[in-house]
Amino acid sequence: MFRTHEVQVRVRYKETDQMGVLYHGNYFTFFEVGRAELLRSQGFTYRELEESGVLAVVVKAECSYHKPAKYDDLLTIQTTISKISKAKIEYEHKVLRKEELLATGHITLAFVNREGKIQRAPEFLSKDRE
Amino acid sequence: MFRTHEVQVRVRYKETDQMGVLYHGNYFTFFEVGRAELLRSQGFTYRELEESGVLAVVVKAECSYHKPAKYDDLLTIQTTISKISKAKIEYEHKVLRKEELLATGHITLAFVNREGKIQRAPEFLSKDRE
Amino acid sequence: MFRTHEVQVRVRYKETDQMGVLYHGNYFTFFEVGRAELLRSQGFTYRELEESGVLAVVVKAECSYHKPAKYDDLLTIQTTISKISKAKIEYEHKVLRKEELLATGHITLAFVNREGKIQRAPEFLSKDRE
Amino acid sequence: MFRTHEVQVRVRYKETDQMGVLYHGNYFTFFEVGRAELLRSQGFTYRELEESGVLAVVVKAECSYHKPAKYDDLLTIQTTISKISKAKIEYEHKVLRKEELLATGHITLAFVNREGKIQRAPEFLSKDRE
Repeated sequence: MFRTHEVQVRVRYKETDQMGVLYHGNYFTFFEVGRAELLRSQGFTYRELEESGVLAVVVKAECSYHKPAKYDDLLTIQTTISKISKAKIEYEHKVLRKEELLATGHITLAFVNREGKIQRAPEFLSKDRE
Repeated sequence: MFRTHEVQVRVRYKETDQMGVLYHGNYFTFFEVGRAELLRSQGFTYRELEESGVLAVVVKAECSYHKPAKYDDLLTIQTTISKISKAKIEYEHKVLRKEELLATGHITLAFVNREGKIQRAPEFLSKDRE
Repeated sequence: MFRTHEVQVRVRYKETDQMGVLYHGNYFTFFEVGRAELLRSQGFTYRELEESGVLAVVVKAECSYHKPAKYDDLLTIQTTISKISKAKIEYEHKVLRKEELLATGHITLAFVNREGKIQRAPEFLSKDRE
Repeated sequence: MFRTHEVQVRVRYKETDQMGVLYHGNYFTFFEVGRAELLRSQGFTYRELEESGVLAVVVKAECSYHKPAKYDDLLTIQTTISKISKAKIEYEHKVLRKEELLATGHITLAFVNREGKIQRAPEFLSKDRE
């Protein structure tokens, strides 16, 4: 099965809104950080992937919000690949404050080249660099 | 049935990413603008709603991306209330560049008071101010 | 002398922070909008400038904050070219809420090509397209 | 003399723009992180300061950009208090990629209470918690 990777992110003042909580749209940035760090933990970076001409584009993004995150909260972003097909990859993300689950997200990416043409999902995405 | 409201938004440089497109997480900000302007078109503002002690919190957000939006594109955000129940309201958003559909979003909001306690959805949300 | 251009921008919820005001870093985005619209009023767009291979990079940015802007405020961004030299252009920006001056900014841009090499400031930046 | 504090921040995809670099307005968010972590290193948090009723508002912000930061760059944010007076505090920030200086910033904050009235700068800002 696929590994789960955890990274910690602290909520910045900029990321709050006047309700005094992390703005709902900013969770997607934390998910992006989670995917980048999962890949790094396998020995790759999204930067090299992109430099090699393979771009990952988000085709679907969703998030369910259970409890608000606050300024300066130290959050854990859990990221797991939930599915890989020929042309797409799906991630599940959980946002926790200690044991407390604050939000759950699902992101689907497709792969394209610089001309926007669909590519096969690189096989290494679910493997470790040897 | 519920009205559909349209507002135009131009993509800012800040909102692009290095892929040369509108960052996927920024569509949620445009949806927020769409909801605010739908409400204004009915004679209300979200600011007064909040000042009256009723806060709208996003409990679910999703977006499907069909085609990328680019810097300086003048986009049309179409916003419709798709469902109102006692405690929640659901919106459908479409992002268009002229006739071309770029993205579709669904946002569910719940209403809480300043203490975070669930409130009834204000009735006027689906009506015009007389 | 150089013309002053005005554009209106409404503060989005996303752009507020938990102090209940427009986050200080977000004024720079409004200044960017002001520069883009000043150029458009002269018959050009920054998009075509960039497509022609001339990139405007910010080399200095500053802002003085006099009074806070709030959510849903309709702000006027006044933009004036304050200086053009061979390689740089300087803008002055004022942010007003009706007559009230909220902030003043100064932005200096340099011009580079795609390889990052300094270019002459395009002459048309201070002129109207005929 | 005042201490200098260093914190590392990695550039997120969201924070880049279509020029392929960190958007100029986003440096101010990194400066904010620098100030928060300097305070934490002294044994305080900005969150408790604010909860005690003292708000730090930015009255002047400036940044000089020397070289662009790129996606996934691991940056060092150096933060030093450069001046404290009765009502204001000034910070100097440097952004480095390894030894390379990318940007320099100066931020001036004033202190207000919840009603917006000017307060004395809390003395502990330049001291360590015992």
